[in-house]
Order: sequence, then structure tokens, then C-alpha cells
Amino acid sequence: MRMTRVRLCMAEIRLRGPEAELENPTLVEGLPGVGLVGKIATDHLIEHLDMRYYASVHCAGLPRIGIYRGGERGVKPPVRLYVSEARDLFALRSDAPISAAAVEDIADCLTNWIVEQDVTPIYLSGLPADLDDEESRDLYGIATGDGEERLEEADIAVPPEDGVITGPTGALINSAARDDIDSLGLVVECNPQFPDPRAASVLLEEGIEPLAELEVDVEELVTSAEEIRAKREQLAQQMQAIAQEESSQAQPLRMYQ
Amino acid sequence: MRMTRVRLCMAEIRLRGPEAELENPTLVEGLPGVGLVGKIATDHLIEHLDMRYYASVHCAGLPRIGIYRGGERGVKPPVRLYVSEARDLFALRSDAPISAAAVEDIADCLTNWIVEQDVTPIYLSGLPADLDDEESRDLYGIATGDGEERLEEADIAVPPEDGVITGPTGALINSAARDDIDSLGLVVECNPQFPDPRAASVLLEEGIEPLAELEVDVEELVTSAEEIRAKREQLAQQMQAIAQEESSQAQPLRMYQ
Amino acid sequence: MRMTRVRLCMAEIRLRGPEAELENPTLVEGLPGVGLVGKIATDHLIEHLDMRYYASVHCAGLPRIGIYRGGERGVKPPVRLYVSEARDLFALRSDAPISAAAVEDIADCLTNWIVEQDVTPIYLSGLPADLDDEESRDLYGIATGDGEERLEEADIAVPPEDGVITGPTGALINSAARDDIDSLGLVVECNPQFPDPRAASVLLEEGIEPLAELEVDVEELVTSAEEIRAKREQLAQQMQAIAQEESSQAQPLRMYQ
Amino acid sequence: MRMTRVRLCMAEIRLRGPEAELENPTLVEGLPGVGLVGKIATDHLIEHLDMRYYASVHCAGLPRIGIYRGGERGVKPPVRLYVSEARDLFALRSDAPISAAAVEDIADCLTNWIVEQDVTPIYLSGLPADLDDEESRDLYGIATGDGEERLEEADIAVPPEDGVITGPTGALINSAARDDIDSLGLVVECNPQFPDPRAASVLLEEGIEPLAELEVDVEELVTSAEEIRAKREQLAQQMQAIAQEESSQAQPLRMYQ
Amino acid sequence: MRMTRVRLCMAEIRLRGPEAELENPTLVEGLPGVGLVGKIATDHLIEHLDMRYYASVHCAGLPRIGIYRGGERGVKPPVRLYVSEARDLFALRSDAPISAAAVEDIADCLTNWIVEQDVTPIYLSGLPADLDDEESRDLYGIATGDGEERLEEADIAVPPEDGVITGPTGALINSAARDDIDSLGLVVECNPQFPDPRAASVLLEEGIEPLAELEVDVEELVTSAEEIRAKREQLAQQMQAIAQEESSQAQPLRMYQ
Repeated sequence: MRMTRVRLCMAEIRLRGPEAELENPTLVEGLPGVGLVGKIATDHLIEHLDMRYYASVHCAGLPRIGIYRGGERGVKPPVRLYVSEARDLFALRSDAPISAAAVEDIADCLTNWIVEQDVTPIYLSGLPADLDDEESRDLYGIATGDGEERLEEADIAVPPEDGVITGPTGALINSAARDDIDSLGLVVECNPQFPDPRAASVLLEEGIEPLAELEVDVEELVTSAEEIRAKREQLAQQMQAIAQEESSQAQPLRMYQ
Repeated sequence: MRMTRVRLCMAEIRLRGPEAELENPTLVEGLPGVGLVGKIATDHLIEHLDMRYYASVHCAGLPRIGIYRGGERGVKPPVRLYVSEARDLFALRSDAPISAAAVEDIADCLTNWIVEQDVTPIYLSGLPADLDDEESRDLYGIATGDGEERLEEADIAVPPEDGVITGPTGALINSAARDDIDSLGLVVECNPQFPDPRAASVLLEEGIEPLAELEVDVEELVTSAEEIRAKREQLAQQMQAIAQEESSQAQPLRMYQ
Repeated sequence: MRMTRVRLCMAEIRLRGPEAELENPTLVEGLPGVGLVGKIATDHLIEHLDMRYYASVHCAGLPRIGIYRGGERGVKPPVRLYVSEARDLFALRSDAPISAAAVEDIADCLTNWIVEQDVTPIYLSGLPADLDDEESRDLYGIATGDGEERLEEADIAVPPEDGVITGPTGALINSAARDDIDSLGLVVECNPQFPDPRAASVLLEEGIEPLAELEVDVEELVTSAEEIRAKREQLAQQMQAIAQEESSQAQPLRMYQ
Repeated sequence: MRMTRVRLCMAEIRLRGPEAELENPTLVEGLPGVGLVGKIATDHLIEHLDMRYYASVHCAGLPRIGIYRGGERGVKPPVRLYVSEARDLFALRSDAPISAAAVEDIADCLTNWIVEQDVTPIYLSGLPADLDDEESRDLYGIATGDGEERLEEADIAVPPEDGVITGPTGALINSAARDDIDSLGLVVECNPQFPDPRAASVLLEEGIEPLAELEVDVEELVTSAEEIRAKREQLAQQMQAIAQEESSQAQPLRMYQ
Repeated sequence: MRMTRVRLCMAEIRLRGPEAELENPTLVEGLPGVGLVGKIATDHLIEHLDMRYYASVHCAGLPRIGIYRGGERGVKPPVRLYVSEARDLFALRSDAPISAAAVEDIADCLTNWIVEQDVTPIYLSGLPADLDDEESRDLYGIATGDGEERLEEADIAVPPEDGVITGPTGALINSAARDDIDSLGLVVECNPQFPDPRAASVLLEEGIEPLAELEVDVEELVTSAEEIRAKREQLAQQMQAIAQEESSQAQPLRMYQ
């Protein structure tokens, strides 16, 4: 009953440095989405675990731009994988928004890589809610394949109502459901308008930490939420702008690190 | 006189669980259309007959999103086939609108599957009419191939005037006419602006029940029409929104079940 | 000096019933255009000569919709060929507008069929003019290949000034000119805004009848012009709407027959 | 250092009548551009030298329309080559604007034909200037390959300032520069808003006549400039309209001949 | 872990004259971007070092136009490479803006050529800043592969904050980062609204001169900055216009040289 799929994977993952030796690795996915919750959590993880730049991701439709860090000279592509061998952990970071045109390619390509490397991905998504800054954010866990057990063990709640995941994260989880591979999804309530570091800290503390068996200090995300949000908001606007930008130019990229 | 057709089927149907053993199966098609009549009827059928999730449908142009139900963790693709072996019945459900870009692919792919499985499809369509809520809805039966007999036996009226079926259902019936396969179409008068559970109940009681030789309680659809309509309207708006949504996020999907 | 043409014919003509045995057949082309003159004339011909549904035409870009007639159950594709073996006549009918995207494919595909079947096509086109309803409409004859003789014999006037034929009919006559096949074109003055049954009757009486050596009663087209126009106008609006329609629905198709 | 070019030539040139026997032929290119200067000059040349319809040009993106002349029945494609064997001359005429989508294909296709036939093309372009009707128009000559000598012999001025040629003529001269074939370009000052028969007469008298060693009476272009302009303006508007026209219709094509 | 890349290089570099004999050549990239800083610097270099027209660059998506210089007849394609064998130097010049559609192709094609020829590219980019005309412009150096050393030797500053490079230059540096080839990038503060010859002179004096071990007189760029800016501004507007221009015409191209 299965018909041939004709779409070719035009995307590519290129190693930067040595291959990694991991056992049952987990991937934390930090593509930009509502409230930037996945990106804030993943960027924080990469920095605080001092993860190594492992590979770059290339795919028709991704912005062909160069990213550099203040105080360094090296230019990197915008979508990258990081690794921590000590923690059996990969992290996916994007410094550019993923356009709808690139979503399918990148989802298929990353899913291939996930299968090949036998990685269990944790997909991160915000759930827009009417919250004030101090209120706590609820966290729910969803899954494909045999991912449910791990959520039960980590004591993450079942979603109370029907839901749909869209965007690049939706495409990734759709691929996982289609191919019936084991994956986990974390859905956290968040502010729909602004970057939400508080929701990111819930993702880290209540979701990623128990699931990936690690600890990160999220103090900073919570105490300086206001400041982080301001910086992230600039970033969010800039990332949208980059997507449309056609003329060659350098721009400062104001990120929180 | 026949020239080569070059278009490749890029769509794919993936089994979820065991193959089904059916005799002369019928397929009830519930893709979203005017008044959501086909979707309301089909969703109702799946729930009340406790049909089994049988296969997912994948096709270039379909939204790459993940769907989950409240109280469950499992994520599913948005377009799915359900089966009831006891009743020799398949049902096609979509939790996302089918964009014009995906219509041809999905029609060709499903038509291939229909031919391979020797299934008789019942295509469901609303016919916009100027009706108030309490008025009865007229039902007409159309067909391709040798489908007419079954409509006569079920005592379903011949359409009184010329008509045209558009959208994904139109593409499916167009494929059936092109390939001269046996199919049935049910056309029911409905409210053109809002979800119309009353019209869906006419589809079920006067059309699907006699044609597929089964019985479903539609009481609920009729007595709580007002409430269902309100929920469905939310859903209809959301489904339109999903089609345009590019940024990753989770959203509650407020369906009637 | 001839370079390879790479475009593949993706269109297809599918027989509906037995092959036809014709001698030097003529094809009357009735695709919708200005004033609907070709469509009104051809639909009238099909009905009054009781022509047989002979084949359906399929092509990327044509609306994938289903058409049914009041009082019948059978669903047909929107673009169809009819035949009268007694009169060595084919007729091409479309119940949907042909979009610009489909024009090239369908012109190439039909032209291939015309060559294979050794058919002489009569292409029908309106020439917008400032006319009142009662005024007579002038008719001109144009040709490709060796078509001119037949126009002379039928005593059809030479066009008095330069002209250009656009749309699907223009693409068909362009293909005929490119491939140097014998074809005839009838150009009739018509109302540029509304369906023009009077112009259609001129096409039939002064053009198609002498060229195809047949007779049809056009009395009805002339005496009930007002009524026909009103119905056709509804149809014209609806056909435009169908082209944009994406959501599944049935609609009454109010045609004059 | 040369990498493979993958683009296929999808365009085609079809002979209409016998092959031509020419020695070192010249091609006058008359595609429509600013002031219609090239088209007016080339159409005038074709008529006054009584050039023979030699070939039609077909290419994805060109309008698929049919052109006919008043007093004749024959329908022709819109882009055509004419020949005068006595004068070793080809002329390229278009009765439709060349859309941006067709520009590359047609430039590559015609350039292939130019190379195969060993033709020296003369590309014609207007240079918008602030001129009144009676003022003289300056003419400049540019070239690719070894074309410069012929311009010197014909005493055509060197352009006084930097310039760029756009549109279909720009694409043709770009192809000539890319492939390093011998070609000439004539750039004439013209009215940027309206058809400019006076500029066309300068192209003919000071450019084409000495280069192609022929004589044409341009008296008429100069003395009836006002009348020609009015007719050409109608044509220019109509040609723009044809480019957008999708519905089948005939239209008078009001050209000066 | 590497998946096949399917995109074909459809671009092409065509030699104009003899192959060049260079040792460890450097390429100065002068595609148009913000403040036209790269283009002004590169055009100045080509003229003052009297560099030889070496090759033209062709690629789907680049404007198919012809460029000519005042006082000369020769027409050239808009994107070209120049060479100075004495200084082991290549320069890339474009007289047309590079559209987003062409960016990927041209970046991949040029990067292939860079690898084949073992060239070290210097990519030039402006960094929009709030500056008045007399203020000095800061210059930063970034790199891919082993390019960092050369920046250190030339005493070019490390960027003080995070940044992103977009447009054609961003695509080139992205390709270099992807393929891990040695490249240098110079980022100079500039006026975001107008051509900035002062910033171009900083690129030349503080960046290109020490890196490529050459000297150019930039006096003129600094003393006549006002005049150059006015001319460049005209050019910048015109280049934007060329990108949209479809009708054939010649236009003066008012460049500073």
C-alpha cells in the first residue's frame, strides 16, 4: 500500500570537527517559534554546558547568511548542531528564522539524521496563553513512537485539551509521527507577543533536565527576565528582518548569551 | 488516443497497525468543505463506531503539522484513514484544510489507493442554500461508474438541477469520473456560512446509513446543534489559520467529539 | 534549423464509450470566451444534434471539478468531446473557464489529437463591437494550412482589418499555425460585456452550417435571446467563481440547454 | 574553468517555405522596446523591401496568440523572421510584447540560430531623451566580437557616455557578448513616452542603410510622423493589453503598414 | 553523515582573453551592497591598477543586460572578473544588483571557481552606522577556514559585537563557511542611506592594501567624496531600476571612474 516518495532530500549536515561518541543521545531542538521559548532554552543550554560546535545544517530555503560573534573572527552558517559528549547531548540552534519554504526540506533532512544517529529528539514549542509575567507556566508532554514512557518517568503532564503544533517544530514532529520514530515534545504556556524567558526556564527545569538527566542553572533566566526579554525582542525583530533582507550588509546581532 | 501521463504520485499512505481484512469496503470521505458537513458527519462516525486509526496520508502541499488529543500524548499527522472491520468501513478524516496546491496530488493518491483496495467511496459535499436552522435539508445522490444502482436502492433523490462540485471533494470525484471507477456522491443542502450539524445528520441518516448498511445515533448532532456549531465554528476559523501559520507553536484545537 | 522541443504533453484525452468511425471529421470548438459565443453555439449544437459524450479531456491546470446535470446522477469532468457519427462531427465543450496556466498544455494536447484523428477544427471567437441587441453581427473567416478554400466555398467574408486572437482559442489557432495544420477560424462581432446568443446564432447559421454541411434550428437562440442571456450571464459569473473556488462544495450550474 | 550549462533551449524556429540562400546575411532585430523605434523601423523595412515570411519563432513564455492581416485569411504566430534574398537580409518582427519570462529563452534560441546561420545581427534600441518632435535624434553604434569595424566604416558615432541595454534587446546583446559573437547595436535617442517614427527613420537612414548596404524610402515615416504615432500608440497600448489578456477573443490590431 | 547535494551549478565563468598566471592570488569582491562600499572600493582598484577584463560571470537570475562605456563600443555582460598578474590579484565587479533569486547560484558558482583556482577571497561589507561625513569609520575583520592569521598580520580589529552578513556577500561567506575554505571578510561602518566613498577608502587603505600587499591612491575618494557620492547615488537608483526594467532600452549609466 506504500507508494514511492519522489522528493529528494536536498539538505545536508556537515561535520565541524571530530565525530562524536555518544550513547543513546538526546537532541534538544531550539528552532525559533512563539515566545522564542525553544531558542532561549537551547541557547542557554549550549552556553552553560559549554557545548561544542558540531555540525552545520544546509538546506534549500535557509537564509544564506554568515553569523559571527563579538570578540571572535570566525563566521558560521546560521543553523548549527552542538554536542556535549559528557552528557550524551546534541542541541540544534538557529540564528535565523526558518521560512515556510525551507520547513519541509529541513524537517526531512534532520529526521534522516536523527534516525541514522539513533537520537531521541525533544521538540520544544510554546502554547500562547493569557499570562502575566509572574504567573507560572504549565508544561505538557507529547510524543511519537515509544516516547511516552520517558515523559511518564519525568512526571510531565498529559495535555488537557486537543492541540496542533505548526511551523518548523510542527514539521519535525509531523515527520517523526509519519516515520513512527521515538520523539518527545514539550509544550509550555507562554506569552504570545514577546520573548518569554520564564517559559524557557520552565522548559529547562521541568522538562529538559529530568528527560535528559542534566542540570543547568536557570536562575539567571528568571531573575533577569526583564533584561533578557528586551534583548531577545530586538533579536526577534532582527531575525524577521533578516528573512526579508536582500542587500549585502553586516548587522550587529544582539543576542543574550 | 491516450497520451502518456507524466505527473508522478508524490503522495503516500502509511499503515498504522495491522492491515485490515474487509469485504467490499466503503470509504466515507470527510475532508473539510462548506458547512463542514462531511467533516462533522465523518468525525461523528469515527467516534461513535469507535473506528481504529488505520493509516496516515502524506502528500506535498498538505500542512506539515502535528495533532494531539486532550488526555493523550500521541501525536498524529493531520490527514488520516480510520477503519471498522466489523462494518467493512473506512473513513477519511482531516484536521487541517486541504490547500489548492495539495488537491491534485491527494486526489490522485487516494484514488490509486481506492482502486488498489477495491473500495467504494462516498464523497460528501454541502450545497449552499438559504435555510433557517429548523428547516429540513434536501439530499441528492450522484455517482461515477456503476455507482447509480446503490443510490437507487437507498432511495436517495436525483439532483433536480445542474451542479458542479469543487475543492478537494470535487477533485476526488473528478478523478473517479476520469478513471471511470465506481463512486457515490452525496450532496446536502446546508448553511453556506456556518458549520451545519443538522445537514451532517441528514448525510448520516438518509445517506451513509442506508448506503453503508449501518446505524449511528445522530440524536446528539440534532439536539445540541447550537453548541456543536459554536465549537465547530472555532475549529473552522482555526483550520483556516493553520493553513497560513508559519511560526512554530502549539495551539488548542477545539473540536467536538 | 529546428531545435528540440522539450515540453512534454501532460494532457490526456480519455475515450467514453466506443471509438467513432468518421470520414473527414470536423471539430467545432466551444471553449468559453468573450460573449460566450463559441460556448453558446457549441452547447446548442450538442443538444440539438443529440451528440454522444465521446471523451473527456484532462490536463494540468484545468479545474479538477465534477459536473452533473439536473435529472441525472452521472458526474463528468468539465472539458469534454462530443461526437455525431451521422454528421462526421466532433464538438468540444467546457463547463469551466480555461485558466492561462492550462492554455498551453491543452492547446498542444488537443492539437496532437486533431492531427492524429485527421480532424479539421473550426475555432470560434467573438470580436468585441459596439452593437445593440437587434443589430446584425458581421462574420469573418480566417485559416491556417489549406483551410482557406473551405471558407471561400462557404462564402464567409475576409476580415477587413488586422486582428489578434487571444485566450485558449488563440492558443489553439497559434498551435495550428505553428504546426501548419489545416484549420478554420470564425470571428463574429459580439457584445463585449454580456453573453451574446444572437452572435452565436450567426456563428451557427452563417459559419458552422455551411462549413460542416449541417442544419440546426437557431430560432430559439434568436427569439429567446433575452432569457438565454440572463441565464448565460449567471453561468458566466459562476464559471469565473469556480476558477477561484478552493473549498469543497456543490453548486447549481444554471445553464441554458 | 568552464562549468556545464544546464539550461535547455526550449525555443524553436520553424521554417515557412523554402530555405534561403544568403551570403554573409544581416539580421535587423525589431522587437518592441522604448519608443517602438526598432519595431517601426523593422516593420517599415519588411513592407518596403517586400520581404518574404521565412520562419516563425516559438518559445515558452511567448504569447500563444494568432495574428491575421486585414484583407487576408492566413493566421500567423506573433514572432516571425522575414527574408530578402536579394539583399542578404533577415528581419525579426514581433506583433506581441516579449515578457520578462520569455526573454532568456528567446535570446538563447535566436543566438543559437544566429551562430548556426552565420548571421550578423543589428540590435536596435531607443535611448530615452528629452526631445521635441522636430529635433534631430543622435545615433550611436556599439558592438560585440569584431563588430566594431563595420560601425566605423558606416561612420556611426561612438557613445559619449556609459550605458546599459535592458529588455529582450538587452538579453540578445548580452548573449552575443557572452558567446563573443559578432554583433552590432544601434542606439538612437527617442521620446520615452510615445512611439517615435522620427527616431525610427534615423535608425534606418543613418544606421541600417549604410550597415546593410540598402536603401529604403523613409519619407513617409518623417512626413506623416504625427499620424503614424497616433496609430502606433494604439498598437502599443493594445500590445500591453494582449500580454495580460486571458479570455479568448479576436481584436483588431491597428498597425501602420 | 553527509547527504547528497542535488542542486546543480547552473552558473558559468567565461574567460575573456588569456588564462592568468598567478601565485596565491587574492580576490577582492565588489558586489553592490549597503553604502556601495565594496563596489566603490573595487571599481577604484580596477581602474587605478589598470586591471585587465578577465572573465564574465553568467548565472540564472542575473540581469541579462549589456553594459557599454562612454568612448568605447564594446558591450560587456554586467558581472565580470578583472585580473592584475603583477599583483596576483583578481577583482569581482557587478554593474547590476544581484537579485535574491540569483544569490545562491552565483555564490555556489564563484565558490567553486575560488576553490579550483586556489584563490583567497576578501569579502567586503558595510555595517550601517550613525555617522556624519567627516567621522572616521571603524573596520573589522572576520574569516572562515584559516583566514584569521592574515587578519592578525594586517592588524585589523576583531568585531566588538555579534553580527550577521546578508545579501550576495552573505551568501558567498556562507558558502565559504559551509565548505570550510579560507576566506577573509572586511566589515566597515558606513552610511546606511547613501553611497559612502569615505568608508570605501577605509576598506582600501586599512584592509585591502595590507592584506593584498598593494598600494592605491585613495586621495581622490576622500577629497571628492561629495561629488562621488552624488554620482554613485544616481547609479544606485539606476541599478535598482534596472532590476525591474523589462522593456528594451538603452540608458546612460552614470558611474564614477
